Amino acid sequence: MTTREPIDLSIAVHPEMLHWGRRPTYEMVEEIGPTNPSEVSRWLIGAHTGTHVDAPSHFITGGTTVDRIPITHTVGPARVLDLTHVAKEITADDLVAAGAAGATRLLFKTRNSTDALTRNVRSETWVGLGPSGARWLADNGATLAGLDYMTMEAPDHTVEWPTHVILCGAGVVILENADLALVDPGDYELVCLPVPFEGREAAPAPAVLLPLAA
Amino acid sequence: MTTREPIDLSIAVHPEMLHWGRRPTYEMVEEIGPTNPSEVSRWLIGAHTGTHVDAPSHFITGGTTVDRIPITHTVGPARVLDLTHVAKEITADDLVAAGAAGATRLLFKTRNSTDALTRNVRSETWVGLGPSGARWLADNGATLAGLDYMTMEAPDHTVEWPTHVILCGAGVVILENADLALVDPGDYELVCLPVPFEGREAAPAPAVLLPLAA
Repeated sequence: MTTREPIDLSIAVHPEMLHWGRRPTYEMVEEIGPTNPSEVSRWLIGAHTGTHVDAPSHFITGGTTVDRIPITHTVGPARVLDLTHVAKEITADDLVAAGAAGATRLLFKTRNSTDALTRNVRSETWVGLGPSGARWLADNGATLAGLDYMTMEAPDHTVEWPTHVILCGAGVVILENADLALVDPGDYELVCLPVPFEGREAAPAPAVLLPLAA
Repeated sequence: MTTREPIDLSIAVHPEMLHWGRRPTYEMVEEIGPTNPSEVSRWLIGAHTGTHVDAPSHFITGGTTVDRIPITHTVGPARVLDLTHVAKEITADDLVAAGAAGATRLLFKTRNSTDALTRNVRSETWVGLGPSGARWLADNGATLAGLDYMTMEAPDHTVEWPTHVILCGAGVVILENADLALVDPGDYELVCLPVPFEGREAAPAPAVLLPLAA
């Protein structure tokens, strides 16, 4: 086989990163020195730290937990949609116009990639997925929806969280903080691998895109 | 393209899991209820929890940290070697006899897969990679070595850690706790994705094997 150059979508995890809720921290358990051969660190991280997925149980009592997501939900052919023109929230019409039909794993490249995520700047006007877009994905067999910001929800909806409720209710895995800044829209193979936090609602989930095999 | 069924090598992370050092724990930050729409957990985990990689800086001051590992070290063609007959530690001769030549990402399937790892049982007699095996990998251009136990080191060497010192010194990424119980020896495409803990020595690194494209 020919080697396929992977495109890394994961953002670095560190105490000064853009975060929702409490910031990630770490402590040094061991450091290399005269009496100790190795470094060992320990981390206190929210399950929603960095590039991560929300499982259905994030919003749905009894929903699938992050360790039980079928691996084919997050690994397989995926489409990166160009939504860089969207001003505020992605609608069902935006998805269709961008060519979403036929894809089941969809990544939304928006102006967040250059406005906020890669500059590690909190935005009050990020682009999210609106409820009509979430409904369209649920109705069209999506298994994964990914965005280039730390929440999929649009700024106007972070009280009721309708997009999360719709996606989690339909079993659509939500990938957040996917760095799409250097990714051209188009079709790839996605490999997104959640850390299997047993029984819980989310986990860091590093992700890469691989060019499709010829 | 045809969809390739991934084989998941990641083990579940939970407080009762087999661990080295302190056990992983979590707390519930939010739970779904009348006043709260979602569940949010926070985890306290060693960097070496579950299926994870050691970066060179684990044993080498100034060595490459886990967030700086070249992605092609851990993503690309890989060979699973049948070493289930090895009683104690894997030697250079064992590697050659098992067909290691020509591979740069190598996973060692040993009796650990059935004796310890998948039964979540601490073994005092696990199979590790011996120093001659580590030296052979360093001399033959390996970028990743993976084992089906929570340390690559063999039981007799956990004071001086020579295998870790050799591999870290040569820039070979060490993948530990890879579940190979259901994997047939042979060639695959490996996708192993460390959580990019900035500046640190290790991180959870979920991994899958994909069948080689025809």
